[in-house]
Amino acid sequence: MQDKQYLMIPGPTPVPPTVTAAMSKPIIGHRGDEFAQLHKRIVEKLQIVFQTRNDIFVVTHSGTGALETAIANTVSPGDKVLSLITGNFGERFANIARAYGAELIAVEFGWGNDVDLRVVEEKLKEHPDIKVVLATQNETSTGVVNDIAGIGALVAETPALLLVDGVSGVGAIEIKVDEWNVDMLCVASQKALMLPPGLAMVTASAKAWEIINKNQSPRFYFSMPAHRKSYEKLNTAYTPGVSLFYGLEAALDMMLAEGMSNVFARHALLARATRAAIKEIGLRLLAEDRCASNALTAVWSPEGIGADEIRKVAKNQYGVAFAGGQGILKGKAMRIAHMGFCDKTDILVAVGALEMALARVGYPVQLGAGVRAAQEVFLGRA
Amino acid sequence: MQDKQYLMIPGPTPVPPTVTAAMSKPIIGHRGDEFAQLHKRIVEKLQIVFQTRNDIFVVTHSGTGALETAIANTVSPGDKVLSLITGNFGERFANIARAYGAELIAVEFGWGNDVDLRVVEEKLKEHPDIKVVLATQNETSTGVVNDIAGIGALVAETPALLLVDGVSGVGAIEIKVDEWNVDMLCVASQKALMLPPGLAMVTASAKAWEIINKNQSPRFYFSMPAHRKSYEKLNTAYTPGVSLFYGLEAALDMMLAEGMSNVFARHALLARATRAAIKEIGLRLLAEDRCASNALTAVWSPEGIGADEIRKVAKNQYGVAFAGGQGILKGKAMRIAHMGFCDKTDILVAVGALEMALARVGYPVQLGAGVRAAQEVFLGRA
Repeated sequence: MQDKQYLMIPGPTPVPPTVTAAMSKPIIGHRGDEFAQLHKRIVEKLQIVFQTRNDIFVVTHSGTGALETAIANTVSPGDKVLSLITGNFGERFANIARAYGAELIAVEFGWGNDVDLRVVEEKLKEHPDIKVVLATQNETSTGVVNDIAGIGALVAETPALLLVDGVSGVGAIEIKVDEWNVDMLCVASQKALMLPPGLAMVTASAKAWEIINKNQSPRFYFSMPAHRKSYEKLNTAYTPGVSLFYGLEAALDMMLAEGMSNVFARHALLARATRAAIKEIGLRLLAEDRCASNALTAVWSPEGIGADEIRKVAKNQYGVAFAGGQGILKGKAMRIAHMGFCDKTDILVAVGALEMALARVGYPVQLGAGVRAAQEVFLGRA
Repeated sequence: MQDKQYLMIPGPTPVPPTVTAAMSKPIIGHRGDEFAQLHKRIVEKLQIVFQTRNDIFVVTHSGTGALETAIANTVSPGDKVLSLITGNFGERFANIARAYGAELIAVEFGWGNDVDLRVVEEKLKEHPDIKVVLATQNETSTGVVNDIAGIGALVAETPALLLVDGVSGVGAIEIKVDEWNVDMLCVASQKALMLPPGLAMVTASAKAWEIINKNQSPRFYFSMPAHRKSYEKLNTAYTPGVSLFYGLEAALDMMLAEGMSNVFARHALLARATRAAIKEIGLRLLAEDRCASNALTAVWSPEGIGADEIRKVAKNQYGVAFAGGQGILKGKAMRIAHMGFCDKTDILVAVGALEMALARVGYPVQLGAGVRAAQEVFLGRA
């Protein structure tokens, strides 16, 4: 049977039937009152999820476009940018700043490690003219979560702006934009927000607007001033992905009905069960428990067996898709996402299929042991 | 009854049920073979619709992002850009070039007029250092179609590139990218291609690549070299709108099954019937027959009656949404789109509702006369 598929990659993630149904509604004009009201409701609901009273713009492109929006509106050629890199997506954020002519101070914390706050403090002191700091909340390539509250507290004491890549974390892992001093947050639709790809969200603080309003880089589709001017009339500057807006409201309604603290607790539980299972199976986790993500778990492949070989069996034999390693982890690691429309049974499926795939490729696995470890977490026995 | 709605604005346009069903399929990973094959099939089908063997990139943002892609990859600060403006979207294209530091030669042909080829020839002769020419195939704000073949023949004799905004025309009105020497064509999903908004397409000729590869403007999400590098592996550079890709293939299949010449003939027939009806009703058309668009028809409001008043009645009383005037036409004109998933009966609805709305706002309309004029066109009697 080829139709029973489980998508356990860190985006795009499975879309709930309620969201699919909402997206199937007839298209409406994007300049009419019906769209304006939908737009307003969505922004108000996002303010709850992001814990902010700042402006939020819902924009029609994927997450990388949101990262570029943050850069294009705050970085001019020659500006000093501190880039806190913990993996592939930290590198991407830095590369965008480079494309906009930034003078980059790139700090690599190592794949699997999180940002060391002492280094951040040191760099900010060493370069008081840093204009922008780039950080990743949840590093999708390694399954590491960074301490945005800690970084935010340090950056807030300087004139620099803190831009945060929240693409794969927000909605799965708590973020407090206002309390944590996040000047611009970038989010995308196809991760914990349970939508297909194609929408992104960008926030901006008052501190950010002072820079945005006078930035010199070319910007049009990504222009924050254009977004703001249109939002004053509840419009979007350019044609919005109307069907994704329908879906976004349905997804936000699901999340708010569950309650955001319950959403975060569910992700924490799924992550804990996954990690317990992996340990029981005898595989090595990429991230220390201390900085392990609740959105996805990255796992080293066993000695002598390629990660992609295991993934191929899991996908072809059991319909379970895990993500591969990125960058330097290619072929060496695999990633199990547990974000968005994901619950306990999905973890049983993931772990059970992983055990069978490992058995098939010749790894000495004790079948059911990982599943049992996950079950024990779910039953509160571990 | 509030649910019987007719969306007759020039984008977003109604989505056929087959396309909605395709878009409701479960999400797949965008780095797997299934997506790669879907991607390849879509590009091959688009090559038929666009009549080109050039590269085509399907990108996740709306049409304005496609226009910016064309500019960001070919225009560096100080470059001379000839902008052929026939309305609001011609102005937008010029504004994007301005944002990228172009030295702009902007020629306004007047709202309701098309591009005069003699002026193009003259300007190209006067400024042999023009690097890029911007043209609009179908000017959505006025319902005017420009002679891209004619413009292309002139530009092809110079070193300049021809960038064409095909957002609201392609799929309704024929374009021959290769034969007409279009170096970059920009298209969007939510017009004649019958999809929700959120996808765009950009083509590039060999002549364009020579400029693209060495252009100096910052670009990342809109980077054509990044798009090309990924497409070599049938990937996309950044996360694609997977559900819209499903829908795009379904829409292309519908168009190719109808046959592209039939698709274009249908649009021509609907346009002719609409114009006949408007004339019969006694309203004034914005575009001369010579350059009237087959994708939409723009109509002047009768003396002393605001266009938006008529639109409001049509929408609220009969569920028929027409677009308003843009820019200098605001409140003075309305636009009836007949593009994409639109057939003869839709024109009967549009004209019939317009007649009733006109009667309600006090315009002396002979009920049924416009409808009859359209019917006569459909029956081959006019």
